[in-house]
Amino acid sequence: MTATIIDGKAFAAGLRQRIATAVTGIGGRGLVPGLAVVLVGSDPASEVYVGSKAKMTVEVGMRSFKHVLPADVPQADLIALVARLNADPEVDGILVQLPLPAGLDPDPVIAAIDPDKDVDGLTNTNAGRLANGRPGLVPCTPLGSMMLIRSVIPDLAGAEAVVVGRSNLVGKPIAQLLLAANATVTLAHSRTRDLAAVCRRADILVAAVGRPQMIGGDYVKPGAVVIDVGINRIPAPERGEGKTRLVGDVAFDEAAAVASAITPAPGGVGPMTIACLLANTLTAAHLRRGLEPPVV
Amino acid sequence: MTATIIDGKAFAAGLRQRIATAVTGIGGRGLVPGLAVVLVGSDPASEVYVGSKAKMTVEVGMRSFKHVLPADVPQADLIALVARLNADPEVDGILVQLPLPAGLDPDPVIAAIDPDKDVDGLTNTNAGRLANGRPGLVPCTPLGSMMLIRSVIPDLAGAEAVVVGRSNLVGKPIAQLLLAANATVTLAHSRTRDLAAVCRRADILVAAVGRPQMIGGDYVKPGAVVIDVGINRIPAPERGEGKTRLVGDVAFDEAAAVASAITPAPGGVGPMTIACLLANTLTAAHLRRGLEPPVV
Repeated sequence: MTATIIDGKAFAAGLRQRIATAVTGIGGRGLVPGLAVVLVGSDPASEVYVGSKAKMTVEVGMRSFKHVLPADVPQADLIALVARLNADPEVDGILVQLPLPAGLDPDPVIAAIDPDKDVDGLTNTNAGRLANGRPGLVPCTPLGSMMLIRSVIPDLAGAEAVVVGRSNLVGKPIAQLLLAANATVTLAHSRTRDLAAVCRRADILVAAVGRPQMIGGDYVKPGAVVIDVGINRIPAPERGEGKTRLVGDVAFDEAAAVASAITPAPGGVGPMTIACLLANTLTAAHLRRGLEPPVV
Repeated sequence: MTATIIDGKAFAAGLRQRIATAVTGIGGRGLVPGLAVVLVGSDPASEVYVGSKAKMTVEVGMRSFKHVLPADVPQADLIALVARLNADPEVDGILVQLPLPAGLDPDPVIAAIDPDKDVDGLTNTNAGRLANGRPGLVPCTPLGSMMLIRSVIPDLAGAEAVVVGRSNLVGKPIAQLLLAANATVTLAHSRTRDLAAVCRRADILVAAVGRPQMIGGDYVKPGAVVIDVGINRIPAPERGEGKTRLVGDVAFDEAAAVASAITPAPGGVGPMTIACLLANTLTAAHLRRGLEPPVV
């Protein structure tokens, strides 16, 4: 069997197009969603991410607000900025780019974000809304992963899903979403015994461990759908001395020979993350006003 | 094999004793934890529960505050009472006895409770704290279930746990606690395919479905620990016409012949619930003051 490759880049482009259409629709009623991104310091990777987010925000017709603070900003000043953005009626979503520079504690900063503007879904309130099955804002990578899963398995009821990795940002919220979709869900992790055997139970296998290519072909049940959330940089001496390349948590070629569908990494879940940030901003703009969010 | 019977009644009595000792300890520093219970209407079962809670609260040396409102109280008045209790420095824990009478919506009432006084662990904030691994207040029945599990398996790392039932109040929080204890956790439910086979994977099997005796001996792996959270009333014609009796979600005799340890129902998880309410009140009294809660 050779697996279908789930093209996250193409799916994300389509999603952004649908978001743009929805934004045009509500724009006629004078509602233009706005996303504020806060960047502290000048980490080059963070600057690239923030730039991409701003560009795509504008491309779908939303307002983009960028706030840059120096790396040595006092914690209280950062929290005061978040408080101003909470109060700003033009701002529907607030994203504080992580990681913060050394010396700043992310927890009180996240806790300061109005849960109704928390488009990264990081606050305890949004984690609780997700756990309790109430409307809220779901972290972007889990949301994007679910969209890709549903693109190949529209009805997940009764399917066996195994999520490897139990981070607050990825593993646990994906497990909640799969459960809400009526899958039987197992959360596996570094302490799981015979991980390969546990993974081989899965109709849907989600890898979110952050270890390059650790999920081999022998972890995959024939015909399973494999979602690779990992993105890891490894040495690539075949490309020249000192060169590197990006790989996922899944040994792609081995797994693709067994699975029915699989995401590549890069090019799978990754592109979905920013698109889902925009989807969350659209959702927040509606929920804050007591409106039903559009399905995009 | 004949299973060890996990005596929840005895464990709960010991726990209440340890709580009483801790309360005496902090009493010397002028700190007397207080639990406020709000009863709306005059449902006989709720009156019995509220009475038991008040009695045990006083027995462990805490203050007990009881507020009774008529069944036709306006929603706004109930929420105003919760707001007064939030502001009352003598009140460390607030419990609104559920279910509320018809016509009252529990969601906004629960949302009105200060999460730091939410000793039932029902607010989104506490569900999110649990999901995100942060200090908070955990629902009482899951907390009590975990204590019973740890009484027979002190180290859960790598154990396979299966939780049947995915309620916000029981199934999901128990799964979070088992995960935090490093078990590999599967959440199964009414849509799970071949539930018996999924359950037979479990070293720790938790039944929280609310269906009398549905977990038969063929659901239990030899040597497993079985925790029966269910409590269901069924007809008992053998006791006389119209008589009933209480049973759990587990077919006790069958399961006890296969398991290594099992909770009876009644007499297992049930008695732990009020004891854990007192434990949560003790925890809340400490956390609210920035103190480290004692381990009881």
